Amino acid sequence: MANEQRAAIIGVVTASDRASAGLYEDESGPAIEAYLRVALATPFRIERRIIPDGFESVRDTLIDLADNVGCDLIVTTGGTGPSPRDLTPEATRAACPRELPGFGELMRQVSLTQTPTAILSRQLAAHRGKCLVINLPGKPRAIELCLDAVMPAVPYCLDLIGAAYVETDPSRVESFRPKAK
Amino acid sequence: MANEQRAAIIGVVTASDRASAGLYEDESGPAIEAYLRVALATPFRIERRIIPDGFESVRDTLIDLADNVGCDLIVTTGGTGPSPRDLTPEATRAACPRELPGFGELMRQVSLTQTPTAILSRQLAAHRGKCLVINLPGKPRAIELCLDAVMPAVPYCLDLIGAAYVETDPSRVESFRPKAK
Amino acid sequence: MANEQRAAIIGVVTASDRASAGLYEDESGPAIEAYLRVALATPFRIERRIIPDGFESVRDTLIDLADNVGCDLIVTTGGTGPSPRDLTPEATRAACPRELPGFGELMRQVSLTQTPTAILSRQLAAHRGKCLVINLPGKPRAIELCLDAVMPAVPYCLDLIGAAYVETDPSRVESFRPKAK
Repeated sequence: MANEQRAAIIGVVTASDRASAGLYEDESGPAIEAYLRVALATPFRIERRIIPDGFESVRDTLIDLADNVGCDLIVTTGGTGPSPRDLTPEATRAACPRELPGFGELMRQVSLTQTPTAILSRQLAAHRGKCLVINLPGKPRAIELCLDAVMPAVPYCLDLIGAAYVETDPSRVESFRPKAK
Repeated sequence: MANEQRAAIIGVVTASDRASAGLYEDESGPAIEAYLRVALATPFRIERRIIPDGFESVRDTLIDLADNVGCDLIVTTGGTGPSPRDLTPEATRAACPRELPGFGELMRQVSLTQTPTAILSRQLAAHRGKCLVINLPGKPRAIELCLDAVMPAVPYCLDLIGAAYVETDPSRVESFRPKAK
Repeated sequence: MANEQRAAIIGVVTASDRASAGLYEDESGPAIEAYLRVALATPFRIERRIIPDGFESVRDTLIDLADNVGCDLIVTTGGTGPSPRDLTPEATRAACPRELPGFGELMRQVSLTQTPTAILSRQLAAHRGKCLVINLPGKPRAIELCLDAVMPAVPYCLDLIGAAYVETDPSRVESFRPKAK
């Protein structure tokens, strides 16, 4: 069950060859960070990473953030499409033994209301022990849409996997915890 | 093709540490049984099992019910969430070589109309030879919602995998068999 | 990125024991071909195959069409249900290392508006290098419904995997290419 004693640690990982090489300013990571600062009502600390696309870079960053930094939640952006360098879903699956297919299904479904190319996204969520990993798209507008869709279920998910206790600000995101049986 | 000669055998499996230890009265198994008695119009026999959560217990129960008891359909309840002890989907996949992803997608979609935490469910359907296995959530209300969603396709699915012939009561569930090509 | 220099090559594969044995006239392949002739505005050449159901036959045909014939897109029909001989999804996965789950989810979702048995379809899309493979159902009406749903995203998908450049006729299918970041 959830650990109510400490602030959550949230990893925000931008997977982008260009952003990590400094050729392009990362807008997605800051957009996620801004979202979290508004949406969450309980204390948390953010760990930012900007890394190249690719299987090993993403997998190893996720494992490090989960196992060494002790993240409760990691949100990634970038690398979920069908391009050869888009390997974030593969890396997430390699780092996280257990997938939660409902996240990817719902995020694609809400993204489809904005663009028909939403079906090209292979984004997913999975957890590595007490750390939940959620893949987000690369564009700030799509990021917000996806976070709005799944965030209501995140606090209870963190409870169930034994991560830190988190509450959302109901004026921005109305999250839900079912009563225990 | 479907075997019209005999009554269907339907397994109803409750995966719950507390219910199997007698610490908690199983309400989900009886809710499924009550649903089936109203929804099905053809004769059937129910085989009930209340077992602990866990990979081996669920997997071995499914294999026994499919191979030795001869179940045409097995409906499970419990163990589909992200908690460490929730291993029903993994066990179902291990017992059943072939997954039918549309069941899980639709059950999550209809459950989302009731609660945002529906995306945490990893429930799926798959078949082991002539036996279809469907994972349901733990709560009676969610069980009914999910069965209402997928039951219209179950009789035809049983035809296709070579299980017993089943008909629903159209006043409760309108099932559908496409005409053969 | 997309190769704009040449006409696309599109494989249309009918998986059907009866059609390949000449016991049944294939209506699905011609329906797909007719759809493509209306929906696509750029030049393309079709490669038709009528093969028996089964894992090896479908897998080997997909690999041959992708690697030797140089198809940019392969559309299959048949073999996606739960019958023992329905092995098109397994064969597609074996031929194509990378699945795009949004295609299957959306095709089942739109098919559900027509028939509750749409959840029995295991159809998916995946790509083998520069070749996208999309599984369609067997019935001409369901084929059109599914193609209408996913075709808007196909040209951009082909761009991303490095296949030929394709444009749809916007009076039939309005496709979408996001602007580069």
